[in-house]
Amino acid sequence: MRYPDHAEPVITLTAGPVNAYPDVLRGLGRTVLYDYDPAFQLFYEKVIGKAQKAMRLSNKPVVLHGEPVMGLEAAAASLISKDDVVLNLASGVYGKGFGYWAKRYSPNLLEIEVPYNEAIDPQSVADMLKAHPEITIVSVCHHDTPSGTINPIDEIGAIVAAHGGYLIVDAVSSFGGMKTHPEDCKADIYVTGPNKCLGAPPGLTLMSVSDRAWERMKANGAAPRASVLSILDWEHAWSKEKPFPFTPSVAEMNGLDVALDLYLNEGPEAVWARHALTAKATRAGAKAMGLSIWAANEKIASPTTTAIRTPEGVDEKALRQAARERYGVVFSSGRGETLGKLTRIGHMGPTAQPIYAIAALTALGGAMNAAGQKLQVGKGVEAALAVIDADA
Amino acid sequence: MRYPDHAEPVITLTAGPVNAYPDVLRGLGRTVLYDYDPAFQLFYEKVIGKAQKAMRLSNKPVVLHGEPVMGLEAAAASLISKDDVVLNLASGVYGKGFGYWAKRYSPNLLEIEVPYNEAIDPQSVADMLKAHPEITIVSVCHHDTPSGTINPIDEIGAIVAAHGGYLIVDAVSSFGGMKTHPEDCKADIYVTGPNKCLGAPPGLTLMSVSDRAWERMKANGAAPRASVLSILDWEHAWSKEKPFPFTPSVAEMNGLDVALDLYLNEGPEAVWARHALTAKATRAGAKAMGLSIWAANEKIASPTTTAIRTPEGVDEKALRQAARERYGVVFSSGRGETLGKLTRIGHMGPTAQPIYAIAALTALGGAMNAAGQKLQVGKGVEAALAVIDADA
Amino acid sequence: MRYPDHAEPVITLTAGPVNAYPDVLRGLGRTVLYDYDPAFQLFYEKVIGKAQKAMRLSNKPVVLHGEPVMGLEAAAASLISKDDVVLNLASGVYGKGFGYWAKRYSPNLLEIEVPYNEAIDPQSVADMLKAHPEITIVSVCHHDTPSGTINPIDEIGAIVAAHGGYLIVDAVSSFGGMKTHPEDCKADIYVTGPNKCLGAPPGLTLMSVSDRAWERMKANGAAPRASVLSILDWEHAWSKEKPFPFTPSVAEMNGLDVALDLYLNEGPEAVWARHALTAKATRAGAKAMGLSIWAANEKIASPTTTAIRTPEGVDEKALRQAARERYGVVFSSGRGETLGKLTRIGHMGPTAQPIYAIAALTALGGAMNAAGQKLQVGKGVEAALAVIDADA
Amino acid sequence: MRYPDHAEPVITLTAGPVNAYPDVLRGLGRTVLYDYDPAFQLFYEKVIGKAQKAMRLSNKPVVLHGEPVMGLEAAAASLISKDDVVLNLASGVYGKGFGYWAKRYSPNLLEIEVPYNEAIDPQSVADMLKAHPEITIVSVCHHDTPSGTINPIDEIGAIVAAHGGYLIVDAVSSFGGMKTHPEDCKADIYVTGPNKCLGAPPGLTLMSVSDRAWERMKANGAAPRASVLSILDWEHAWSKEKPFPFTPSVAEMNGLDVALDLYLNEGPEAVWARHALTAKATRAGAKAMGLSIWAANEKIASPTTTAIRTPEGVDEKALRQAARERYGVVFSSGRGETLGKLTRIGHMGPTAQPIYAIAALTALGGAMNAAGQKLQVGKGVEAALAVIDADA
Repeated sequence: MRYPDHAEPVITLTAGPVNAYPDVLRGLGRTVLYDYDPAFQLFYEKVIGKAQKAMRLSNKPVVLHGEPVMGLEAAAASLISKDDVVLNLASGVYGKGFGYWAKRYSPNLLEIEVPYNEAIDPQSVADMLKAHPEITIVSVCHHDTPSGTINPIDEIGAIVAAHGGYLIVDAVSSFGGMKTHPEDCKADIYVTGPNKCLGAPPGLTLMSVSDRAWERMKANGAAPRASVLSILDWEHAWSKEKPFPFTPSVAEMNGLDVALDLYLNEGPEAVWARHALTAKATRAGAKAMGLSIWAANEKIASPTTTAIRTPEGVDEKALRQAARERYGVVFSSGRGETLGKLTRIGHMGPTAQPIYAIAALTALGGAMNAAGQKLQVGKGVEAALAVIDADA
Repeated sequence: MRYPDHAEPVITLTAGPVNAYPDVLRGLGRTVLYDYDPAFQLFYEKVIGKAQKAMRLSNKPVVLHGEPVMGLEAAAASLISKDDVVLNLASGVYGKGFGYWAKRYSPNLLEIEVPYNEAIDPQSVADMLKAHPEITIVSVCHHDTPSGTINPIDEIGAIVAAHGGYLIVDAVSSFGGMKTHPEDCKADIYVTGPNKCLGAPPGLTLMSVSDRAWERMKANGAAPRASVLSILDWEHAWSKEKPFPFTPSVAEMNGLDVALDLYLNEGPEAVWARHALTAKATRAGAKAMGLSIWAANEKIASPTTTAIRTPEGVDEKALRQAARERYGVVFSSGRGETLGKLTRIGHMGPTAQPIYAIAALTALGGAMNAAGQKLQVGKGVEAALAVIDADA
Repeated sequence: MRYPDHAEPVITLTAGPVNAYPDVLRGLGRTVLYDYDPAFQLFYEKVIGKAQKAMRLSNKPVVLHGEPVMGLEAAAASLISKDDVVLNLASGVYGKGFGYWAKRYSPNLLEIEVPYNEAIDPQSVADMLKAHPEITIVSVCHHDTPSGTINPIDEIGAIVAAHGGYLIVDAVSSFGGMKTHPEDCKADIYVTGPNKCLGAPPGLTLMSVSDRAWERMKANGAAPRASVLSILDWEHAWSKEKPFPFTPSVAEMNGLDVALDLYLNEGPEAVWARHALTAKATRAGAKAMGLSIWAANEKIASPTTTAIRTPEGVDEKALRQAARERYGVVFSSGRGETLGKLTRIGHMGPTAQPIYAIAALTALGGAMNAAGQKLQVGKGVEAALAVIDADA
Repeated sequence: MRYPDHAEPVITLTAGPVNAYPDVLRGLGRTVLYDYDPAFQLFYEKVIGKAQKAMRLSNKPVVLHGEPVMGLEAAAASLISKDDVVLNLASGVYGKGFGYWAKRYSPNLLEIEVPYNEAIDPQSVADMLKAHPEITIVSVCHHDTPSGTINPIDEIGAIVAAHGGYLIVDAVSSFGGMKTHPEDCKADIYVTGPNKCLGAPPGLTLMSVSDRAWERMKANGAAPRASVLSILDWEHAWSKEKPFPFTPSVAEMNGLDVALDLYLNEGPEAVWARHALTAKATRAGAKAMGLSIWAANEKIASPTTTAIRTPEGVDEKALRQAARERYGVVFSSGRGETLGKLTRIGHMGPTAQPIYAIAALTALGGAMNAAGQKLQVGKGVEAALAVIDADA
């Protein structure tokens, strides 16, 4: 049998969007309340409170009503002004990409770039800041999803804070799947979303803004206002006493509410643990069957996405197509520079379950063999199983 | 009994968001597919095809992944450049508001403004265009929701087209609830959304772009690109062969798909008819019980929202609160200049049913009487019923 | 406009099934767990605990996996044996109907029957029991839905208990909508369901069984066992330690769980109050517009259903059809002997909201006038509104 | 990590209930219509039409409103009367169990019983019928789920028909997952349900009744009437013109409607193929890792359930518990005589996907090894994968 293109796959193991938790999917269908209805305003305030708790924040987070690229673009547009000197840290396609937005708002862009299978060395940041005391803003991507690699943002954040700089963190695909919180890394703006490890659909940005970042944005005359790119407009929107600048995405808020409940009720530590174990089992299995992990070393391999290097001679696109056609399993390709060079297995939210490591390895291995490789899929499964069993 | 603030009301009869059709609510909970999955790409193309059919377009419409204010701001940002002379037609708060966006992109703004309970006279547009042949762009709001009034956009569109100007139409709260289509009014950009008369939640913009508007935006170097405000980025996103510029709001697309099916299957003419009848019954009832319609005359009163003038001495906010507390019925207030002066009863999507005119009139009348008026609610109900029965 | 037969009506105001609460509808779609899964067994035990709380029981209630007629038939089959002398109290079609089941299991049937718009007089029961000390079992319908009338079961129950008889109560369409609990009326078997005032779909029986009724059924060799009609098989099914005799209706249990939460969280007294107020407003309105209540007096008129006498010369079926076609409002007809003689407006669960009294009166009045009556619908609405306002 | 008892498992691979298709789960939440509403009556008739199509029947099937044990008990009660001589074919716990019901309605019970890992030999039926020309009714279970074995009902049916007997078939857990239809086996009563291979929740019986079986039941004065066990009461319930004997389970009908659409739209042959392939891969994998299939030979192993013999010294209950705790995968135990002797992996509806064979084998193998076995799970996965790939 072959799964046709038009039919839904059996298991989506991508780096996002992933399928949402069933409870979240049902939550999306709650009654759509009028945004000025007191019941909705009370609800909105409550959801922001849950997000604050999940993000372990001392002030209220902001929800923007578009997927996290909206939050990232808005952060650049709001915090960076033409006199800023921005240091952008690029260890992958997404980190690199933020530099283009930064450049739109300030011509003064410095960059530390490392090969896209490596992570930023905090020492290099310290050195750069020392060499360039004029740097005002540092931007970094925590989990550069197209590489499946993690940057040490807590260490970097401490260095930037010591320097007195502002830190913008893209934690879109790490928050909720591993231990990371805005204040752990001293982020001034920290952007994430419900659509990765929280297991909700794409459509919202979840963002923290430090008190001093609020001050700075207010002082920035060029920061977007009366715009969908405005962060400032939403500063007080969390309060049931305050109106919304425009209509919030009611259904997505309903979904976020459930996703936050699930996260908090399961227990963040337990959620992180199953992400970590799934990734660890996947890496062990992949290596045991003869595949290479893209990340230069395990320490920087993401617990929320495993990127597997495409073996020589294998057409990566055909590989993923074979996995879908034969087994109904969907993976992500690379993006930009990593496109064609790797295949990504997501471990996010509802798919961060060790048994899916087995499904992933089998489907990937089977597809590789269909593409002419001679992988020992059984060995891969046994190695993954050993990792899972060792944790039982 | 009193309905508490924290409890969901019984019936939401606002000018949007309104509750979505139950089928749409369930549609939101479909499996979240990966945006690069062929099944999703095929689905997206299919939904755009349905939107094209509903909008009776000769080319493909665009979906932007934020509620329609995103589409309106994006239209201003993409089509208007600094050498343009824009004529903004303002018959209400929303029409007036578009002028501020227009001014952001071109300093040359002309305006025709009429009292906010009247409509734009097409002759005044013809006169203005004759007096100002340098006008390149005309913008108009079809249904100025905060006033519940309708502008004659088909007539205006014909005049603008004869002049050779570009026309931007805000049809957010009229499309789907009455006969209006982009090509009927020769719009170059026509902005609407699923969250009003189509009965879906807020979170998307549905937009048509004429061929010559595409050309003009492409020629505009300042038009947003690589931005959530970009229309250009999404030109080909409808095609299953083309990638998305960023992750689309999968759940909202699922909801839109159902909303379009409902609209097309019920039959647009039938949908418009129940909007019109509900509004007509509401107006007849309101007048019969001694209330005044805000619109200067019935001809310009919207079939999708009825704005009722606040009687002298009545606190409009307390009025709506009484309707909610006593009867569980939620109405909209005015906005900006109309705030406090009127109360709005929405007839949109699932609430565009004549029986809700009865509920609305009773709740509004009861609340008015609680505020010291002496309305004859029974007379209002009988007048509304007579309208409904006359159509049976 | 006319609502076609194939389209869903706008508002269903029947005596059940009524539409379920939106939260219940979504609850039905929870993951279907394996009935032997520990998570399901824990869940089942928890739901039974909630039902026990809602029913204010000192022992565990039983859920049977069919709509309440299953419970009623099972009660007759399990408790009544051939030597019993049963006194059946018939004040309506459903009460009368139970006698046929009773007769199937014992030939010795006595009956007190009153006109179907009246209620059983407790004194008549006392007299009968005195005259027939051999009576072992008394059966009574609390709310005889086809008549919209309520029997005084707490008084009757006290009399039966003093006599030493067993009492079977049909509280299917009263429980959850007014103050009634099994132990209030000293019922030995008390049958209700989620599909009336609890606002869930039909498919389950909710039943209490007194300790002495359990003993009696166990002693009855003819009581169904290994049968879908068995109550005995389910005695211990509530316990997570015990297996189910056959597969329970998982989705219906999921819905019941939500319905019980809603009932307990809103507060039973608050729920009963809105049922009572909706019914009271409906009766006041109906009388004010010139209609007659079927119930002989207001004291016995049900708070969960209002039966309106069909005026002379009116075709009851055509009347309901007109209400549906013109206004999208659905009512119930009578049943059996009351068919054609009355129309029933349900006030159950989500429809037990006073504003629906207005919709009901208008739709019924409009339909009556379409059938040639000359009702003053406005007067009816005003009278109903006065009742609602008096309670505000 | 360990999955706690109270948390939902990751994958339920039981012999039913299995989780329903997501579309079915959402379908359950459709508006609950009044059963006498014309829209519901039209809908009901349409669903019965779809069931007729799926069952490839020349007359209308019947839906009973309880899970299939209701249908089986009702079949015995309705068709078998005290003068009948029943031949019950028992190749497993469920087949054997039907005999107890048969005996309740007729004292004349003959039985062919084979070991519970074998199937009935049609020749033995022919011989028995020849030896006992007085046999009037033959009953057989198609897929004896507690054994995971299939009886050759088409062959048996031809023999019974030639004899002139009536045939009762339990096809609860085979229909929809393999090629079987009532008229293929000349069944007079054929009982199945939505809750196995059709991927809907338990709560309904789907049943075909031959014309001559209708006649026979009508002639049987003891056949249940005015009872939840009645089939006769529902003969005409499919027709929109006819009332229901009691309230149908509206939500379950909504789910069944979707399940039938999914089955018919995917294509029965395609659905059967993925059931068969999943089972085949599971068997190959189990054997390759050193486990034994319960079924005496592959030819009689069910495509919808694979029963694996419990290895000596392994505690079957602990085994399943380990699979759930470590991997979040739930299996079924045996029932009655097979309890403790085997573990069952279901392949039904949404879980009949080959990739779940991999998950099943890994979880079962891992749990076996945790119980002290030394299985080579990798070999099992490779063998299963080879089966899947061979079909690609």
